[in-house]
Formats: sequence, structure tokens, C-alpha cells
Amino acid sequence: MKKFDNDLIIRLLKGQSVSRTPVWIMRQAGRYLPEYMAVRADHDFLEMCKTPELSAEVTIQPVDIVGVDAAIIFSDILVLPEAMGMHLVVEEGKGGPRFTNPVKGKSAVSQLHDVDCRSSLGYVADAIGIAVERLNGRVPMIGFCGSPWTLLAYMVEGKGGDFTRARAMLYDDPSTAHQLLEMLARNSIAYLRMQYEAGADFVQIFDTWAGVLSPELYEEFSLRYMKEIVKSLQPEIPVIVFSKGAGSSLEKIARIGASAVGVDWTVPIGEAAARTGGVVQGNLDPSVLFARPDVILSRAGKVLREAPKGRHIFNLGHGILPGTPVANVKALVDFVRKGEVD
Amino acid sequence: MKKFDNDLIIRLLKGQSVSRTPVWIMRQAGRYLPEYMAVRADHDFLEMCKTPELSAEVTIQPVDIVGVDAAIIFSDILVLPEAMGMHLVVEEGKGGPRFTNPVKGKSAVSQLHDVDCRSSLGYVADAIGIAVERLNGRVPMIGFCGSPWTLLAYMVEGKGGDFTRARAMLYDDPSTAHQLLEMLARNSIAYLRMQYEAGADFVQIFDTWAGVLSPELYEEFSLRYMKEIVKSLQPEIPVIVFSKGAGSSLEKIARIGASAVGVDWTVPIGEAAARTGGVVQGNLDPSVLFARPDVILSRAGKVLREAPKGRHIFNLGHGILPGTPVANVKALVDFVRKGEVD
Repeated sequence: MKKFDNDLIIRLLKGQSVSRTPVWIMRQAGRYLPEYMAVRADHDFLEMCKTPELSAEVTIQPVDIVGVDAAIIFSDILVLPEAMGMHLVVEEGKGGPRFTNPVKGKSAVSQLHDVDCRSSLGYVADAIGIAVERLNGRVPMIGFCGSPWTLLAYMVEGKGGDFTRARAMLYDDPSTAHQLLEMLARNSIAYLRMQYEAGADFVQIFDTWAGVLSPELYEEFSLRYMKEIVKSLQPEIPVIVFSKGAGSSLEKIARIGASAVGVDWTVPIGEAAARTGGVVQGNLDPSVLFARPDVILSRAGKVLREAPKGRHIFNLGHGILPGTPVANVKALVDFVRKGEVD
Repeated sequence: MKKFDNDLIIRLLKGQSVSRTPVWIMRQAGRYLPEYMAVRADHDFLEMCKTPELSAEVTIQPVDIVGVDAAIIFSDILVLPEAMGMHLVVEEGKGGPRFTNPVKGKSAVSQLHDVDCRSSLGYVADAIGIAVERLNGRVPMIGFCGSPWTLLAYMVEGKGGDFTRARAMLYDDPSTAHQLLEMLARNSIAYLRMQYEAGADFVQIFDTWAGVLSPELYEEFSLRYMKEIVKSLQPEIPVIVFSKGAGSSLEKIARIGASAVGVDWTVPIGEAAARTGGVVQGNLDPSVLFARPDVILSRAGKVLREAPKGRHIFNLGHGILPGTPVANVKALVDFVRKGEVD
């Protein structure tokens, strides 16, 4: 069994007692760190994802600089569908990643293929391996993937937005949607297992676009497939499930049995903990980090007071925003680590 | 008192009995109608908003073509902040309207001014006057505005998106936010009153960006100011309040006393009706209209069955989407008007 200098999050995910609330930050590797930007200046985004040395380097940066209690591998949820046959393009200043061959129906799904993770996504495993070696047990390593629904949304729509085409597929052609979601769940399981075997200690499923679905569609097309993944991996591999914008479904999310449930900032963390009954992760609004330090600490203190001690991983309610002042991030993490809130 | 051939929605908003569920569609004037596109081909968007003859023409189109039970004046929520001193630009294919002088703090707020509606926004009143005359009592006319929070969000951010700057202002400088919201509420009241006096029979407040706020911030920075508007206008002018993405706050929304509460597709309409206890409007997912006709009618039937008869205005859960097939819209409206659902 691995030994860590800091195993707070792992203990918490296993239901063991912890001395203080641990903290990590979604998207902590990248975007706002000058040290990341320095690497990024010479390499494009996908090149960084696919070069283990570079990915490992920026993965460790927030542990060194900000002092978070876990590292999360620097990558993107869309590399899995890319490996399944989608054409992924990430261009500067053009509104996020996109697929140039959006899935338009059953025939397009049949052109996708299962992934041999080691050969197609081995760079992620290699990056995890390098990062874990360099971390040398300081903090655990988080692996991740997108939820099947969130991946389908991008694959059908081709790009970010309201995902109206993707939603229309759920209504109009549910059997094709289920076929694709089943395929995504199967490949996500293999992908997360590879990350675990490469050195990730636990994993998170990012269901970023849960919020565009009605509760009924969410349950049928998103939650169901995350449950498949959780059932396949746990208890060996602890899983955190984060469905952004699905606050009305928290009780149902809790029932799929993940080790922890992520919560965005639209549900008070205390309410989320009461409704799920388990470990919750979140939920400071990322825009708070643009406020004055006293406001940041006051808001963070509120989250810490409302959350149940020993059942809470401090995090933002969504990814950290580009342009966030690094000093504010450090102040936040220091504050949570001191844990002096009553 | 005005007489209408079809006063279903007005009766419903006044708590009177109706023979069937009425229907209108958010953004029904524009976007998907070839007849609108034909007018739009020769005029830019803001020109259409500001030319009463053109605005009135496209306002009436969906009554003639689709058969909805109300007309809503063709305009944009951002013309009010424009009249207060913001520079509004709407360019083709550049991601929606934007302000070239986003509000950056208290000094920027002090440079805005109260609006003399008749002189700055008289074109809206004139368009309503022309449209009402042409409608000749067939259906009522709806006036509208954006909620103070949703307008602030655009004014501070400059454009659509996650409104992270706007949220940061609420945390970092709440007094400036309240000053601007108070100003927006005051001017919205005058603006809606002008629309009523010009011939609008009732009004809707579009709180499109409610969903980016925590329930706590929503109550303090959005709901409070919509309540001010509702209190000032009702009972003389019936008001529908629509906060997209605020499903967790429905009970609180109901308590501000609007004549009806709009509901997006993330809360089942029956649940929304039970939680508000009053008239609800909505809530078919606009992306359903891209499905096959039998799927559309099945989904619409579900909404009609779940909603309480006599307390429901059928609508989409958000604006109709560009590219929606007109035949599908007609089929939907015909279906609701027939009202043959048990």
C-alpha cells in the first residue's frame, strides 16, 4: 500500500477520520498560474496534454506553488472521444475545444471504435507515472474523465454551448444516444482503470453539462451511466462524481454510491451534505476569487462552517477561472489548511 | 375596458376560469420564421427594434402564422440599459449583443442616467401602439423587460457568458451592485408602465441569468428587485416573472406575488405548480421542437397532463431556438389549442 505524507483526501474518501478539511481546486493545473503560462507559451494545449513530461510538470505546479492537498493530472476530458475516432481541435481564442466531425446519428456512432487505452491514451498513463514519481508521496494523484453524457454532448454538438442538438438527440433518437452512452461508459471504465494502474489514487467524473437536462433526462441519460462506472471501479478505486447544475437530483446522485459528491455553488454545502448523507466536495463560487482577500476568507469560512467536518473536501463549485489572482488562491488554500473556523 | 376575441391569458392571470390552456412562445417573434428572416434580411437587429413599423410587423407574424394566444412586442432587454448610457452593439455572427463600455465600478454607475422613457424608448411604445391597432383585439399584447440582475450581468460583463465579473461585483462591491440594481428597478418600472400605457395588457420580466447565482445571492440581488417592480405595477398591470435556472427558489419567487411564475424545463411543471401554488408558465424544453412530430406531441402532452388546468400558460422553458422547424411549432400550438389531453 502506498504511503503519503498527506493522505487526508484518501482517508476521507474511505470514511476514515481526518485532522482537518483537505482542499484541492478544479482546474488547479493551468489557466491562472504564470508558471503554467510560461510552459504554455511554447506548446499548444493538446501538445501539452500529449507530452507526458509537460503534462507532469504542470500537474505538480499547484502542489508546489499553492499547496493543495492533491494533484490532478493535467489533461482534457475530450481526449477519450478523440481516441474513439472524433477529430478534436483546440484553437486559441476560438471559444474552446471542438470536434470537426460532430456525431449526427446512428451511422456516425457506428464509425466510432472502442479504445485500446494503452496504445491511444498511454500518454496520460505516462504523465501520471512521471508526476507520481516526482511527487514522491507528498500528496495523492487524481485521475479523471468526463461523464458519458457530457462527452456525448460535445460529440453531438461539436462544441460547447447550450447543447440543443445533443438534447434533441435524447428526445428524438434515444436508442442511438443510449448506444453511444454505453460505449462511452465502457471506454471510460477502461480509461480510469488505466489511470489508476498508472498511479492515480482516486478519480473524478466531471459531468459538466448535467445542468442542461431535466431531472428525468438527467437520470436516464447521465446518472445511469455514471453509476455503471462507479459500480465497476469501486471500492477498489474511489470515485468522486460531480454533476454541475444538478442540485435538484442530489439525493439520486448519492444513491449511485460514489465515495463523494461534488457540489456547485447553487446549493449550500450544508444542505448538500444533509441531502446526500455522505462526503461532499465544493463549493465556493470561483468568481469569489476575484474579490478582496477579506471577502474571500469570509466566503470560504462560510463554506467551512456549513459543511460537516470530516465529510467535506474543500473545492470551488466549478473550475478556477482564467485570470484568477494567484495570491488569492494561495490565501484561500492557506486559510482552509489552517482550518481555524469554528 | 378592452375587449378581446381571445382573452384566455388575461383571464388566467386574473384568476378567472378559462376554457382551455393558452399558449405563447418565448422569442416567438423572430429567429425561426421565414417571414421574419425576410424582413431581417434588409434591416439590422437594432434597426428593427427601433423602427416601430418593422417591430410591429414581426410582432404580429406569429399570431398570424403560428396561432399563439398572445403577441409579445419584438424588442430586446438591452435597449433599456442602452437608453441609460450603455453603448450597445449587435453584430452578426459575433456571439450575441454586447456593451462596448462595461460597467467597472461605482464611478461607471454614476455616469449612467435615469431614462425619460417617452423620449429615449418611445419607439417601443410606438411599436406596441401600431401592433395593438393591427391586432384589432384578436389576442392580448405582452410587454417585457429584463430583470435588474440580468441587465446588471450584461452591463458589468459587457457580453453573455458565465458572468463571472458580474458575480465578482456582488461579492466584492455589493453596495455598487445595489445602487445599480435600484436604478435598474426604478427605470424598469417606468419602462413597463410606458409599455402598458401604449397598449400592452400584461408584462413579463425575463431573469435569464438567475441560474448563475447561489440561492442566497439570487434572493438578495435578483428577486428583491423583481419584487419591487411587481409591487409597483400590480394589480393594475399583471406581471409574469421568469427566472431561468432558479428552480430551487420557486417558493420564494411565488411569495413576491406576481400573477404567474415562469418555469424552465429543469423542474417538472406539476412540481412547480405545487410549490408556487399559483399560475405557472412553461415548460417544454425548446430542443424538443427539433424532434419528430409524434415525440413533440408526446412531450407536450406530458406537460399538459402534469400542469394544473386553469393555472397553466403553456410555453417553452426558454426562448425558441434558431432553426426550429416552423411546421413543428405550428403542430405544437395546434395541439395545445385543441387541448384534448386528459
